[in-house]
Amino acid sequence: MQTYRQIYKWGDKRDSHLDAHTLEFLEEYFGTDRSRQQQIAESIRADDPVRIAPNNLASEHRQFFIQLLGEACVEQSDFSRASHALGKYYADLLHLRHGRVPFPPDVVLMPKSHQQVQQIVDYCSQHHLPIIPFGGGSSVTRALEAQRGGVSLDLQAHMHQVLELNTHNQTVRVQAGISGPQLESYLNERGYTCGHFPQSFEHSTVGGWIAARGAGQCSTGYGRAEDLMVALKVAMPIGTFESRDYPACAQAWDLNRLFAGSEGTLGVITEVTWRIFRYRPANQACGTFIFRDFESATEAMREIMQAEIGRPHLFRISDGPETWFGFKHQGFEGTWKDKFLRWKGYHPPARSTMMMTVEGDERFTRLVARRIRSIARKHGGLAAGKSPVHRWLKQRYTSSYLRDAFMDAGYMIDTMETAVTWDRLLPLWRALHKFFDETNRAVFGMSHISHVYPNGCNLYTIFMAPMKPMQPDEDIAEFLNLQQGILKTFVDHGGSISHHHGVGRMGGQFMHTQFDPTGLNMLNGIKRCLDPNGILNPGGTLSLDN
Amino acid sequence: MQTYRQIYKWGDKRDSHLDAHTLEFLEEYFGTDRSRQQQIAESIRADDPVRIAPNNLASEHRQFFIQLLGEACVEQSDFSRASHALGKYYADLLHLRHGRVPFPPDVVLMPKSHQQVQQIVDYCSQHHLPIIPFGGGSSVTRALEAQRGGVSLDLQAHMHQVLELNTHNQTVRVQAGISGPQLESYLNERGYTCGHFPQSFEHSTVGGWIAARGAGQCSTGYGRAEDLMVALKVAMPIGTFESRDYPACAQAWDLNRLFAGSEGTLGVITEVTWRIFRYRPANQACGTFIFRDFESATEAMREIMQAEIGRPHLFRISDGPETWFGFKHQGFEGTWKDKFLRWKGYHPPARSTMMMTVEGDERFTRLVARRIRSIARKHGGLAAGKSPVHRWLKQRYTSSYLRDAFMDAGYMIDTMETAVTWDRLLPLWRALHKFFDETNRAVFGMSHISHVYPNGCNLYTIFMAPMKPMQPDEDIAEFLNLQQGILKTFVDHGGSISHHHGVGRMGGQFMHTQFDPTGLNMLNGIKRCLDPNGILNPGGTLSLDN
Repeated sequence: MQTYRQIYKWGDKRDSHLDAHTLEFLEEYFGTDRSRQQQIAESIRADDPVRIAPNNLASEHRQFFIQLLGEACVEQSDFSRASHALGKYYADLLHLRHGRVPFPPDVVLMPKSHQQVQQIVDYCSQHHLPIIPFGGGSSVTRALEAQRGGVSLDLQAHMHQVLELNTHNQTVRVQAGISGPQLESYLNERGYTCGHFPQSFEHSTVGGWIAARGAGQCSTGYGRAEDLMVALKVAMPIGTFESRDYPACAQAWDLNRLFAGSEGTLGVITEVTWRIFRYRPANQACGTFIFRDFESATEAMREIMQAEIGRPHLFRISDGPETWFGFKHQGFEGTWKDKFLRWKGYHPPARSTMMMTVEGDERFTRLVARRIRSIARKHGGLAAGKSPVHRWLKQRYTSSYLRDAFMDAGYMIDTMETAVTWDRLLPLWRALHKFFDETNRAVFGMSHISHVYPNGCNLYTIFMAPMKPMQPDEDIAEFLNLQQGILKTFVDHGGSISHHHGVGRMGGQFMHTQFDPTGLNMLNGIKRCLDPNGILNPGGTLSLDN
Repeated sequence: MQTYRQIYKWGDKRDSHLDAHTLEFLEEYFGTDRSRQQQIAESIRADDPVRIAPNNLASEHRQFFIQLLGEACVEQSDFSRASHALGKYYADLLHLRHGRVPFPPDVVLMPKSHQQVQQIVDYCSQHHLPIIPFGGGSSVTRALEAQRGGVSLDLQAHMHQVLELNTHNQTVRVQAGISGPQLESYLNERGYTCGHFPQSFEHSTVGGWIAARGAGQCSTGYGRAEDLMVALKVAMPIGTFESRDYPACAQAWDLNRLFAGSEGTLGVITEVTWRIFRYRPANQACGTFIFRDFESATEAMREIMQAEIGRPHLFRISDGPETWFGFKHQGFEGTWKDKFLRWKGYHPPARSTMMMTVEGDERFTRLVARRIRSIARKHGGLAAGKSPVHRWLKQRYTSSYLRDAFMDAGYMIDTMETAVTWDRLLPLWRALHKFFDETNRAVFGMSHISHVYPNGCNLYTIFMAPMKPMQPDEDIAEFLNLQQGILKTFVDHGGSISHHHGVGRMGGQFMHTQFDPTGLNMLNGIKRCLDPNGILNPGGTLSLDN
């Protein structure tokens, strides 16, 4: 049976449950009742089969697609259309739990080659049929909604071949629909790694990494998706663009960069040349440090990034609330280690945790780790060993599976993220937590930094609240209200509306805070020039006009 | 007296002469006669005052500019117009030595603020008057020619203020017309460095670095201009674009990147936020290595770049001919060191030289230098100490002053450069030197690598030939013939037409080898969208249509 729950559940489709520590924390914090919350959650499990409105695809279009791709690659079942209509944004999950699919595509196409994609794009442009490119489906920005119906173009189904491994140049050329695990296991077997590990790694594609302008968990060392791409092949309504794999050049502006962050509005990325690195996990150095507070941890982090001592690859700080929550979750509070920390003056909820790994040449990783340790110590960082890092790495992708467990226990949980320069970081962080505090324990928020640069960092916040027994529309409206309050706090304090999630339709209404009218004109002008009929991911993505 | 020679001479305007070793090398190699060559050169010193055709600026335009900027900032003298009409491309110098200024602007404007620039751009767009943005005037790609007359917009004259130093973020915000030395001395006094040192450093501007998509001599460590820019303010016919200084973000595609490589065709960059680094020259580690041949040197270089041991900042290999020429120039041949090298099997003209520096934290630079040394040794690199690096650094900007000394001695000398992946480097390099060899000693060519990446590098070639007593047109035609042969060799062997010089009008006819028709359409479409009347650097720049 193909249910809504099969669509919305992330990762492992089997049921999992929140641990006792976390449940107790939530109940204590919010004053909630376990069975009442469970009852709310039970009522929106949506274990029934997906039923959506019939598709509106004209039969001549269907015939064309079948002729081009074969019947097996043209799907119109309710389940397939619904599976391609939503990502993993909290409101998406709410919709599905309420048994709703607001904007399904009319058809899901699963092409096998660049040529097929280009033919689909040409055909759709000619017939003004919308196309929504679909990679792993992990969007958290409403980037996949078929607001005007049309085609969901699934790149992952059949376009996941490695086309060329070039060990001389340390690059790999792949079809854009290849997923993280497919690429990484291919590379690991040959002694290489792709260096890009977003939390959605297991369910995202190389094309999606670029289109959403993502950053992996080790981006501080390896760089962002846009830094790791070398060359692209893209199908657009104005034709195929294919770039060269030069290491760098000065021949007009970089056309590749248009597609990083284009979120499917400019073209369909079909092939990618990507930098790779030697895979040497045994060389990895790592460490954990506990600081008295977020302020001293961030000062250490800034100094490390500006000291020119080499860079950590994974580099994170959990702020006071996140450290507090994590320690509760792990049952750390009350242990002798906890007592020792308190005795040294490291108290919750201020104490904060820093984690790092360094990868590469063995002597190099050891030296960089040593230099990091010495700077951390200067700012009061107490070394807390390697095991927290190893534990964290083990759950690096699966921790987000917990979102479903939270919702099954009757708790809303979502994340928002921003980019900010060092000089605006602390005021922004303080404003954000003031915002949470002012809800009077109606919302619990905690934050971390997880992508770091010499001139600033991201700030990623996870927020939770008890779910209420509500009508779908009210439920979503309450969430949006909260979420927009967070975005507004970011923007009011000099943060961006996204660091690596992208904008999609979720952040559209804030685009004017990020771009002046000339900037918005530039985005729209370029959009019109590459997609004159406005067929690519139309209806609000990036707040483009079309 | 304001002469042609004052315009074409680079750097120190006083006369300087080639050293005896170099002169002997040239005469031996080409079989030339000293006094005959000098006689040819004498005949085109162009020590006479500049006289060019009258300007074609309508008086109402002149009145508008005077009203806006004041009389002192609106120049129309022959000398000023001629000084802004040409860069430092060999053919530019030939033109000037022959007393010719092919495409002078009608007027030189020297604005003081972004607002003035925007007003000029608006006015010119409205009246279809061409604008050629002018920074330091060091273009080697014919990017400054006023093919259709109009305005040369001199940003360097009055727009060279530091607007904000942010040591917290390690960034500096400047007016785009600030020159390398103005910026660097400001920063050095405060303990920082800009990290960008093109050979034209003394006579180029921050805006120009970005517009031409340049790379400095230490780009391997610090990154290219496009990596060092954080935010821009740009005056365009469609209005002012101003970007934020986020360390990174995922909010649509990166509009900043449009201007890196735009060569004045999309907008006038007026303000730049730029990354800075701690200035710690005492920590610099450096080294020189002699290899048996170019092949083993490049294998060492590739391994160093891919080993994840940290990166050198300056990183260069002089191939066999360049090492040979350099040793001749320094009178090294025949010394006991030379004999020792030969005894060890390191013979000219194959033996090749690698140089590197590492900058940053002291312990870090030492470790990286040690790891580089060990990889170099593995590939047969003999350590040759620090002094060659120190010598090289001393003449890092002034070596190009020698071009005038070469021409004064009757020798043509110019450079071309390409970017290439590792797997195509050696075939391209061999083809290039085969091309030089086939001229039967009519041309001497030598090459180096000076900007290095994990997946490839640049290749930079310097070529010389005796000048002949010729009519201007023949003289230039002969040079162009040679130069296009080199470009064709690059392209035929998978190299780009530019790594960091840009394309200008010089490389225009090769753009179709780098971009497919869709790519060229994208460039032109974006151009039209930002500059609808085609007033910005029109007439062939980047082979755009307008």
